[in-house]
Amino acid sequence: MKIIDGGVCAAKGFLANGIHCGIRKNKTKRDIALIYSETRASAAAVYTKNLVKGAPLSVTKNHIADGYARAVICNSGNANTCNADGIEIAEKTAQLLAKEMKIDASDVVVASTGVIGLPMSIEPFEMGIPALVAGLSRDGGHAATEGIMTTDTRPKEIAVEFTVGGKVCRIGGIAKGSGMIHPNMATMLVFITTDVAICPTLLQKALSGDIENTFNMVSVDGDTSTNDMVCILANGAAGNAEITENGEDFKTFMTALNTVTVDLCRKIAGDGEGATKLLECKVTGAKELSVAKTVARSVICSSLVKAAMFGADANWGRVLCAIGYAGADVDINKVDVDFASVGGRIAVCRSGSGVEFSEELAKQILLKEEIEILVSLNDGDATATAWGCDLTYDYVKINGDYRT
Amino acid sequence: MKIIDGGVCAAKGFLANGIHCGIRKNKTKRDIALIYSETRASAAAVYTKNLVKGAPLSVTKNHIADGYARAVICNSGNANTCNADGIEIAEKTAQLLAKEMKIDASDVVVASTGVIGLPMSIEPFEMGIPALVAGLSRDGGHAATEGIMTTDTRPKEIAVEFTVGGKVCRIGGIAKGSGMIHPNMATMLVFITTDVAICPTLLQKALSGDIENTFNMVSVDGDTSTNDMVCILANGAAGNAEITENGEDFKTFMTALNTVTVDLCRKIAGDGEGATKLLECKVTGAKELSVAKTVARSVICSSLVKAAMFGADANWGRVLCAIGYAGADVDINKVDVDFASVGGRIAVCRSGSGVEFSEELAKQILLKEEIEILVSLNDGDATATAWGCDLTYDYVKINGDYRT
Repeated sequence: MKIIDGGVCAAKGFLANGIHCGIRKNKTKRDIALIYSETRASAAAVYTKNLVKGAPLSVTKNHIADGYARAVICNSGNANTCNADGIEIAEKTAQLLAKEMKIDASDVVVASTGVIGLPMSIEPFEMGIPALVAGLSRDGGHAATEGIMTTDTRPKEIAVEFTVGGKVCRIGGIAKGSGMIHPNMATMLVFITTDVAICPTLLQKALSGDIENTFNMVSVDGDTSTNDMVCILANGAAGNAEITENGEDFKTFMTALNTVTVDLCRKIAGDGEGATKLLECKVTGAKELSVAKTVARSVICSSLVKAAMFGADANWGRVLCAIGYAGADVDINKVDVDFASVGGRIAVCRSGSGVEFSEELAKQILLKEEIEILVSLNDGDATATAWGCDLTYDYVKINGDYRT
Repeated sequence: MKIIDGGVCAAKGFLANGIHCGIRKNKTKRDIALIYSETRASAAAVYTKNLVKGAPLSVTKNHIADGYARAVICNSGNANTCNADGIEIAEKTAQLLAKEMKIDASDVVVASTGVIGLPMSIEPFEMGIPALVAGLSRDGGHAATEGIMTTDTRPKEIAVEFTVGGKVCRIGGIAKGSGMIHPNMATMLVFITTDVAICPTLLQKALSGDIENTFNMVSVDGDTSTNDMVCILANGAAGNAEITENGEDFKTFMTALNTVTVDLCRKIAGDGEGATKLLECKVTGAKELSVAKTVARSVICSSLVKAAMFGADANWGRVLCAIGYAGADVDINKVDVDFASVGGRIAVCRSGSGVEFSEELAKQILLKEEIEILVSLNDGDATATAWGCDLTYDYVKINGDYRT
């Protein structure tokens, strides 16, 4: 497997675009994105578990119920959530796009991200869709990535090339973070395309299985968004024999998918609102998987751990504290904790108690941009990783007055 | 019932003191507190549910297993947690105090608060206890309050006077916040004294019942501390007939206790680390109590709601979002939300959708120091209140480098 350029257009038969259509006031900011498959593609998605769901999610769920789709349209700047006419607007968006592209409206995936409860108008879509469609190209993946950004500071994309049944295949994805992000849901907005031939049932199985260990292990701020969605389209343009069972080809596909999703997880967490650092908590030696996951997420979600990492302060007691209240079956007296980065690795806790360590070395390690918090529970074989970021002044600044 | 002065010394027969004994480097900061009952008192306590528990908690649990105690000694500056010799030091502290006061070491409640995993020495206790005991007085409640403060900016105390069986009784308490505070545990450090005569069993029943609706409904940062404890001593000096059953007198006592605990909850939340505002989320119309409590806590714990309140931004969509991911059985289409303060009251959401409102009035309301977030679920009769604070730059500052 190798990493390649092109993001969501790396897979054969996909075009994309992103433009400014008028949802945002700032005309220099793209606010709408389109991803298009030249042929009908197998489609699968997972959605937020928040009881408050963005109107586009209901429409999308309905549209891909048959397992197929051809286009994804996504705006930023307005979440189209908690609006009385939300469903109507999301449906109308799909219809406008379908008409312009001469495809079936029920093959359109609709998504929105931005402020909740802000009235939404159909006008920017009416104005923008013709130009959005006219500009579709094989080079448009990056513009599409920009079109779905909110408080993200960096576009997030990745693609890899791999082989299934002797055929070269590609899978690529784009994502937007970066606030209102918390595990145990269906995640943030992520769109993945692949030219692998795979039936809708196995595509959904692959996606649903993967996100449990990837996007559901990311937290920026503990808030589960109302508009989260991960959607994947597989158009079969690579020419492999269609994957219809859980065999070798499916495993190869799962590995490629996981490479894309883990990369996007790291990018989302590292670009969390206000973040200066990516935090990766790797838990090993757990009694069972659920314990490893619960502990990893608890550490990543702790405001006090996050603030300590911002300050490059090796306050490992807060890591122990977060393990202790995680609600998992852990023997605290067996717990070891290390901090690591490209700056080195340092042991700070053994068997639940502190050990002497060099504060200078710890500082050197924690001043880097990607920090590993390594927790050994010494109680079994299960492992898990969770991704997060530090808590900074800028998180408060960004969210203290997001609407204005 | 009326509010009176004196805090933890308001009840007859209680003395207190707080001094600097050398645990903290800053000599102007008191770092040890003592509360003493002239006679043996009924004692009850609740403890953190964190698996990592401060050593003093184990010692205290053991000491009050018989239902009685005479003294509470509590230091700040070091949590005495995750130290291999923690239990030994906590026991030794009780012994030193017992020897100096000529009481039984098993009648001493021990507590610590401060940094986790910092080696702790017995020397400051050896040096300080004689002066701490010598300075005990009826006026020492305030000094004791100061002795248990960590990042608290204000001492927290309250006392009330009420009548049980024709006898005037008093109950007062002191508390320390202000970070690592989260519901669903046994809370922060709170010491309550009363001169009511009540048997240990009913005292424990009163305390355990009360905290479910008070301290367990407070959150500053979602982190459940390792050293939380609420302890109450009742010495019977008021001369009422001892309360030994769940009758009228017990109810009167519960009401007085609740007045003290709610007041301390508001003080702890309002003085949360970095806080500029007290947030009070009142949920009404819930199907059942557990729903009301879950929703109230979810709103209070949301980083995004907290940051919006800091910015006086009426971003009610974040309140809806937090209700949606709370995990409670709620019909989102029935939810109403208002914001209120001494600046007025404003409706922002009806039946799950936004309503037009004056941004100016909303700003005026949210710029006040005590904000009410009023959530009506319109689905039953259960109600609950949770307390929290806004998320500010100073929370990050305080916790970015707490140890230095």
